Amino acid sequence: MVNVGVIGLVMGGAHLEGYKGVPDVNILAICDLNQALLKEQAEKFSVPHTFSDYRKMLEVEELDAVTIALPNFLHCPVTLDSLEAGKHVLIEKPMAMNSSEAEKMIKKAKEKTKVLAVAMNYRFAPERMLLKKMIGKGDLGEIYYVRAVSLRRRTFPRELFERADPRTWFTRKEKSGGGSLIDMGPHMLDMAMWYCNDFKPVSAYGVTSCGMKNGDVDDLSSALIKLSGGVTITLVSTWESFTKPRFFVSLFGTKGGAETDPLRIYREVDGADIEVKPGDVEVSEDSFICAMSGLQSHFIECLRDGKKCEVSGERGLAVMKVIDGIYESAETGKEVDIS
Amino acid sequence: MVNVGVIGLVMGGAHLEGYKGVPDVNILAICDLNQALLKEQAEKFSVPHTFSDYRKMLEVEELDAVTIALPNFLHCPVTLDSLEAGKHVLIEKPMAMNSSEAEKMIKKAKEKTKVLAVAMNYRFAPERMLLKKMIGKGDLGEIYYVRAVSLRRRTFPRELFERADPRTWFTRKEKSGGGSLIDMGPHMLDMAMWYCNDFKPVSAYGVTSCGMKNGDVDDLSSALIKLSGGVTITLVSTWESFTKPRFFVSLFGTKGGAETDPLRIYREVDGADIEVKPGDVEVSEDSFICAMSGLQSHFIECLRDGKKCEVSGERGLAVMKVIDGIYESAETGKEVDIS
Amino acid sequence: MVNVGVIGLVMGGAHLEGYKGVPDVNILAICDLNQALLKEQAEKFSVPHTFSDYRKMLEVEELDAVTIALPNFLHCPVTLDSLEAGKHVLIEKPMAMNSSEAEKMIKKAKEKTKVLAVAMNYRFAPERMLLKKMIGKGDLGEIYYVRAVSLRRRTFPRELFERADPRTWFTRKEKSGGGSLIDMGPHMLDMAMWYCNDFKPVSAYGVTSCGMKNGDVDDLSSALIKLSGGVTITLVSTWESFTKPRFFVSLFGTKGGAETDPLRIYREVDGADIEVKPGDVEVSEDSFICAMSGLQSHFIECLRDGKKCEVSGERGLAVMKVIDGIYESAETGKEVDIS
Amino acid sequence: MVNVGVIGLVMGGAHLEGYKGVPDVNILAICDLNQALLKEQAEKFSVPHTFSDYRKMLEVEELDAVTIALPNFLHCPVTLDSLEAGKHVLIEKPMAMNSSEAEKMIKKAKEKTKVLAVAMNYRFAPERMLLKKMIGKGDLGEIYYVRAVSLRRRTFPRELFERADPRTWFTRKEKSGGGSLIDMGPHMLDMAMWYCNDFKPVSAYGVTSCGMKNGDVDDLSSALIKLSGGVTITLVSTWESFTKPRFFVSLFGTKGGAETDPLRIYREVDGADIEVKPGDVEVSEDSFICAMSGLQSHFIECLRDGKKCEVSGERGLAVMKVIDGIYESAETGKEVDIS
Amino acid sequence: MVNVGVIGLVMGGAHLEGYKGVPDVNILAICDLNQALLKEQAEKFSVPHTFSDYRKMLEVEELDAVTIALPNFLHCPVTLDSLEAGKHVLIEKPMAMNSSEAEKMIKKAKEKTKVLAVAMNYRFAPERMLLKKMIGKGDLGEIYYVRAVSLRRRTFPRELFERADPRTWFTRKEKSGGGSLIDMGPHMLDMAMWYCNDFKPVSAYGVTSCGMKNGDVDDLSSALIKLSGGVTITLVSTWESFTKPRFFVSLFGTKGGAETDPLRIYREVDGADIEVKPGDVEVSEDSFICAMSGLQSHFIECLRDGKKCEVSGERGLAVMKVIDGIYESAETGKEVDIS
Amino acid sequence: MVNVGVIGLVMGGAHLEGYKGVPDVNILAICDLNQALLKEQAEKFSVPHTFSDYRKMLEVEELDAVTIALPNFLHCPVTLDSLEAGKHVLIEKPMAMNSSEAEKMIKKAKEKTKVLAVAMNYRFAPERMLLKKMIGKGDLGEIYYVRAVSLRRRTFPRELFERADPRTWFTRKEKSGGGSLIDMGPHMLDMAMWYCNDFKPVSAYGVTSCGMKNGDVDDLSSALIKLSGGVTITLVSTWESFTKPRFFVSLFGTKGGAETDPLRIYREVDGADIEVKPGDVEVSEDSFICAMSGLQSHFIECLRDGKKCEVSGERGLAVMKVIDGIYESAETGKEVDIS
Repeated sequence: MVNVGVIGLVMGGAHLEGYKGVPDVNILAICDLNQALLKEQAEKFSVPHTFSDYRKMLEVEELDAVTIALPNFLHCPVTLDSLEAGKHVLIEKPMAMNSSEAEKMIKKAKEKTKVLAVAMNYRFAPERMLLKKMIGKGDLGEIYYVRAVSLRRRTFPRELFERADPRTWFTRKEKSGGGSLIDMGPHMLDMAMWYCNDFKPVSAYGVTSCGMKNGDVDDLSSALIKLSGGVTITLVSTWESFTKPRFFVSLFGTKGGAETDPLRIYREVDGADIEVKPGDVEVSEDSFICAMSGLQSHFIECLRDGKKCEVSGERGLAVMKVIDGIYESAETGKEVDIS
Repeated sequence: MVNVGVIGLVMGGAHLEGYKGVPDVNILAICDLNQALLKEQAEKFSVPHTFSDYRKMLEVEELDAVTIALPNFLHCPVTLDSLEAGKHVLIEKPMAMNSSEAEKMIKKAKEKTKVLAVAMNYRFAPERMLLKKMIGKGDLGEIYYVRAVSLRRRTFPRELFERADPRTWFTRKEKSGGGSLIDMGPHMLDMAMWYCNDFKPVSAYGVTSCGMKNGDVDDLSSALIKLSGGVTITLVSTWESFTKPRFFVSLFGTKGGAETDPLRIYREVDGADIEVKPGDVEVSEDSFICAMSGLQSHFIECLRDGKKCEVSGERGLAVMKVIDGIYESAETGKEVDIS
Repeated sequence: MVNVGVIGLVMGGAHLEGYKGVPDVNILAICDLNQALLKEQAEKFSVPHTFSDYRKMLEVEELDAVTIALPNFLHCPVTLDSLEAGKHVLIEKPMAMNSSEAEKMIKKAKEKTKVLAVAMNYRFAPERMLLKKMIGKGDLGEIYYVRAVSLRRRTFPRELFERADPRTWFTRKEKSGGGSLIDMGPHMLDMAMWYCNDFKPVSAYGVTSCGMKNGDVDDLSSALIKLSGGVTITLVSTWESFTKPRFFVSLFGTKGGAETDPLRIYREVDGADIEVKPGDVEVSEDSFICAMSGLQSHFIECLRDGKKCEVSGERGLAVMKVIDGIYESAETGKEVDIS
Repeated sequence: MVNVGVIGLVMGGAHLEGYKGVPDVNILAICDLNQALLKEQAEKFSVPHTFSDYRKMLEVEELDAVTIALPNFLHCPVTLDSLEAGKHVLIEKPMAMNSSEAEKMIKKAKEKTKVLAVAMNYRFAPERMLLKKMIGKGDLGEIYYVRAVSLRRRTFPRELFERADPRTWFTRKEKSGGGSLIDMGPHMLDMAMWYCNDFKPVSAYGVTSCGMKNGDVDDLSSALIKLSGGVTITLVSTWESFTKPRFFVSLFGTKGGAETDPLRIYREVDGADIEVKPGDVEVSEDSFICAMSGLQSHFIECLRDGKKCEVSGERGLAVMKVIDGIYESAETGKEVDIS
Repeated sequence: MVNVGVIGLVMGGAHLEGYKGVPDVNILAICDLNQALLKEQAEKFSVPHTFSDYRKMLEVEELDAVTIALPNFLHCPVTLDSLEAGKHVLIEKPMAMNSSEAEKMIKKAKEKTKVLAVAMNYRFAPERMLLKKMIGKGDLGEIYYVRAVSLRRRTFPRELFERADPRTWFTRKEKSGGGSLIDMGPHMLDMAMWYCNDFKPVSAYGVTSCGMKNGDVDDLSSALIKLSGGVTITLVSTWESFTKPRFFVSLFGTKGGAETDPLRIYREVDGADIEVKPGDVEVSEDSFICAMSGLQSHFIECLRDGKKCEVSGERGLAVMKVIDGIYESAETGKEVDIS
Repeated sequence: MVNVGVIGLVMGGAHLEGYKGVPDVNILAICDLNQALLKEQAEKFSVPHTFSDYRKMLEVEELDAVTIALPNFLHCPVTLDSLEAGKHVLIEKPMAMNSSEAEKMIKKAKEKTKVLAVAMNYRFAPERMLLKKMIGKGDLGEIYYVRAVSLRRRTFPRELFERADPRTWFTRKEKSGGGSLIDMGPHMLDMAMWYCNDFKPVSAYGVTSCGMKNGDVDDLSSALIKLSGGVTITLVSTWESFTKPRFFVSLFGTKGGAETDPLRIYREVDGADIEVKPGDVEVSEDSFICAMSGLQSHFIECLRDGKKCEVSGERGLAVMKVIDGIYESAETGKEVDIS
């Protein structure tokens, strides 16, 4: 039985839900400044210990690992403290405000020989893992081009965009590090690069725009990223646009193509174009939570059994570098070398 | 350029349409007792010579081959005359009234070293050929069970079933040899056995029923046929029933399954059930004519280039034996050995 | 108030659910070897008495009737004991391992003048009963042909088929009496014969095949059954095939046709083909439980009010004989007389 | 062979098309002021004689009957001349500008003992005739309420409504007698009353409104009509409104209900609500022309075989009286007695 | 915090559900003759006080307002008592048995300066309010015609119509004041007139019919109502007919049209007909309850903050007068002046 | 009447079809090297004069204008010759192999004061013009981001990609100037920039890839283009990929968004997200030809009435510069300045 704690309950709810689907895990403690929320969640998930000061929680010896789900600017300091306290860490995405923070976190984790995993959980959804297996078997040949599209019409309640509200750390660059790109980019870029065999990113070129009345971050971002091996990724993300909502990653390979959400494979058999539809791995309504459980199970296996972490700090850093590069390119108007 | 003639224009229309899609063929002559129809079709397809006596037509030396599309009881005698006259023959299905006639025709063709092909054209539709290729590559593993279903709500104008009409040779056993089974069975059985590697039929067990007011043939037939190699085929056909119309062949294999019309493949990839949908070989409206052209092209290649005939008299005989067996079983109530 | 007990809780869950929808019934006792399950279900359904030995339970005098939902090989002995103890019995389908066991059970029930009913509950679903009424009024004329189709892509968790597991009594002939045929056949055959006015079966001819890695029963069966009165039934059932899942019974009559799941009637009105769609008796998600309650209500009426049992041991025996006949035919390769 | 002539080709095109589907009819002559159109149609339909003066055409002795398809204000005078000349007449709907004209036409037809039929062809569509038959058999019980709905978003090219154009006799009351009501009402009212056993209309109450920039007729009309026998019809028609286009007649009976376009029957069977969908009489694309041929065949049978005319001048007059009543009610604001 | 009480729980359930969505409201008491229901609802909604005599409940001083949801004939007397007791009143629709009762209620409310609101809650559904806003901005121009359609196939359990049952006050005119018209008319007429800027009704003309075996009220009603300003409303309502169920209000304006349920707007942009589909205000499953909460929130604002009541007794009276007018017209067969 | 000639008939077929829908135009001459095609098309479109040498055709004085539809490398020289001969020119897209050719053509047109128009006909489709009008009225606010997507699964017959064939000038860079980008880019870029008020392109950054067995051009291209005014366009095009085919341009504005093919507008009304669907300007099957006629009508108005050309050589050059920039960026890996 592994004892875990969760720090930050607003976004940590999905983590609590997710752990219900993971065997041999005990949620020993949770932590938040909001007392009402703390009490409510402790009851809902039968958690024995609650804290409003995460430092106190880290003193609990029985705690093996923590999940950190705080506003982005707190990701780095709280992770460093947790690792220092000897806890394995599962950090919400984006793992940090930028690459340099991410590097510090990785260094500390190595120093303390603890697992540092990033909650890039999308890839753990069954249909997305099935696609990865198919690619591994060579079904698509070599992938040379990827489209990653994440368009939303409405991410937040309408009012948040119009007034100053403590909940809106999301829309303040000093607290979030950025907007739709740093929020949705980690999932999209992690998936895109994972499907391309984790080729190293070499350059980023992009734009961002901000349409919020009350905020200074990107509401929309669009970029063209080159990986080693000649692969190109294009990415577009938006929080709040006048558009039909869509989320998918589309892969173009030499022997086949694929699109996620829902999963479809495009191939050729004896000169005939075919479309393959997986029968029993449809994206379900609770796909997000299901993928979270998958991620958490993996995290537990890493810290308990020494399994290699697939969403390690290093993978998080690769993603972070691309995001840093896009933001820099959007500012300078130039291609940014991130190799 | 190969010169062909068509004998019988009521059902021969599809043959004339089909030849339009075949290169290097010239329709030199057509033959029918109905003068108006003869004239109309000659104009429509620009046919230079017309005959009302097929024996006269067979005297035309330039004629290389004939297509015979007459009432079933004429299939055998006209084929024998045509072969005797030195013509290659493409005979409408069913090739004869029964196996013994079929055997005579095969013997004559061998004697005159002419091609005798049977118009079992369903298998030449693109999507059905694609499925055959997939099976050939082992995609379905070994096939052990086949369902062949051909249900119609209405085959003939309502009146034909209720009155005596010269057109209704279809519903008189002495002229047709049988009803829905001998009419639609050749297509279904040819396809079913073809997909099963032309395993030899060993036994037939079936029933027929007749619901026509004016006719003595089966309106519905249902049978269970065993092939060598342990394969079972079940077949149901009806001309006029209170049912939702359906036509398909469904294959059950050890590694995958398939259903035609439209084509779907059911397989498993890494433990996930998938459904494969061919993208560009959908059954089109004119699928029947398209398959006819495919059959005719093959026939031309056989007689001109000596290619091995895939719908030879022998294949037609295998089908015929199953049909004979089912009719016998329906009468005796016993399983019939046809090995 | 009638006091009932349920023996066997793994499959008995549906029975407990079903009884909730039946008035004037009290679940007095439940019995299972699994103590955890026993406790859980007792709480869930507020059952006052629990037993791990069914013989002890049968000693409870207040108990009027028992539902038996055990592995098939226990159906006969536990039913005999229950009848002996003076309880009315509702036995899960198949009522026994074979006809000879079934006959013993019927004899014992007669001896003790108790009701012996078989849980062939499909027929009690509202839309299926509506169809029976329509047939009774002559809407379809005389039925002469029935197709019963039950195809599944996945019945059990994938692993069960690949390893030895105590739960897998299903796949051991000595414990189950057979596979997909004895499992799903009772529902299909009961419905098919019921719609045909319970005509007596006269012969069976069929095949079975087994594709399981760990088991010796039929995964697929297909048969052609003849009833007295000239009716033919064809049946196909499979547990685990590469196919599109389907379940329905299709009836062909002289004045109309019908198909269940969902219910559609095909008729002719003044020369026009029409399709009738019942408006408010659609098969609901909980159709199975709803049909179970219907069956149980009927069972209660029989034992309390002396109503004639429509799913009596005799009807179960008729079904059993057909199943025995198909298994024998599959082995001998011959038609089997079951009249 | 019956010789017919068509007067007026703009709307007469549908009549020429329709006659192609009628056996034993010869279109001997056509008449129009537009020479180009006259020539074009004569060629298209192989008509031997053309006229620009209908009086000259009426002198042709061989002519048995004429179809008149002119602007409404010409219906009465040209019909009177045609009957006088001894021709049977099929007059486009509305048969006249008002009831008093209609009465003159009926009187003249009687005097000359010629057939006077009105082109209320909607009822001759197969699915609508099927419904009539069902009603005749009592399937709906007694009909007590009818909704007739004819909503269009766009009847004419947009410009017609905005400018003075000779083609726009449609929108001038002096030439058309009215707008959407007199145009579409005849079809709707004829069908509604026909389905109600031709009960006599007793009162009309309605409103009209005009939204045209260039015209003085009703673009929208809505009315409540009472028939003898306690039946109520409501009617709404519009040529050009901001609405979803719809056309149907909906019938409410004591034993069942029905809706046309497409045809659905609502009934109850053993306490279950059912919906009946005719299988093979769907409204086809060319339903209007098909219904026209049906009407014309009936017309020919009446004049040749003395069959009773179902769309006689009297039926046209009943419709006309309702229309007159609605227009009067719309003006006076009061219920109008039309019994 | 406003303290409310609910009188009548059979129909009051929706009110209790609705209040859950209203802030600053406390359900202090509920009242019903049925003790079991009283207890059940008190527990379900945590209501501290229960009464079987509403007069006793009205003596509770802390009670600020009551919701009355009783059979129609009790609406007037209980409202008068409640107002007399100094409580604000939210009365279920129809507000009374007829206009004269409604007038007494209004008079009493004025006298006691209390709010009298009618539960015409349909208009408070989000999509319907959005349409009202659009009309307010002039998007549809002037509305000149409205179709209000409310067709049901089955309102009550089948048995209610066939037997005498105390629950069936619905079908006794002395207790209900009428049938489908007084039941569904208030919602339809309130919406129709609200969208037409609350133009005053000037006349009503209509019919009713009764098809119930056990009842003397209208099962179907149909009417044509004229408002001041030249607007026409047609209305049809039925409880139990052989028809496809439908509910909507359709508006015809000079610049655009609209239809509710679901909401669609029809307009023209640069000569192109467009159809507008609101993206995020779809009618949800619990639309009725949601609209109820909207109504209740408004009621609370009126009594607490002195806001003008949009569903005041006067609006209820305007609706009532139309209903009275239709019933009178149905009896006399004449147009009824209600201006 | 304007006399036009068409040079190049393989692609010129669409031009001949298009001219049928343009008033006051006479196709006086056509020119092609393929004599059979020349004769066939002359007959089909009743063209009086045919040429195999375009220089001879240009000598015809009556010819006012020519349409040039030749392989890309011939666009510039034949245009120069045509302008020199005093003819107005409508040149197929892409107008040239590159910008420098385009500039020569523009210079020559100015010199000879002739109209030089480019066949960027997509924008002339009705629904796309409707969108332009909406943008012109400010319905979308300021557009800041555009996605242009053109994905095909199969552009050419499968064989063309695998063998050397004279028809395949498409896949040879020396004859075509490029692949999917230069082929489909002109339509996409013309539309994208047109909707953005023809803002000047300032930079291009992109990639291309080539998957053809027999060809040296891009099968796929992807780029990010910046326009003056802060607008960003992303573009992806492919001829032959394993993907679901799609074609659309998606616009993101400050007040609304839009997507073409089919046209949908996304806006907000009173806080509600709405989706606008144009009712009568759907993209029809022959949309391409319809748009061609629109373009040709405009061309005729320009040369005859002196109307300003909307698809002038200058607009073609703007598009050409972006394409040149993308190809250069793909080669150098750097952002290319094209301001």
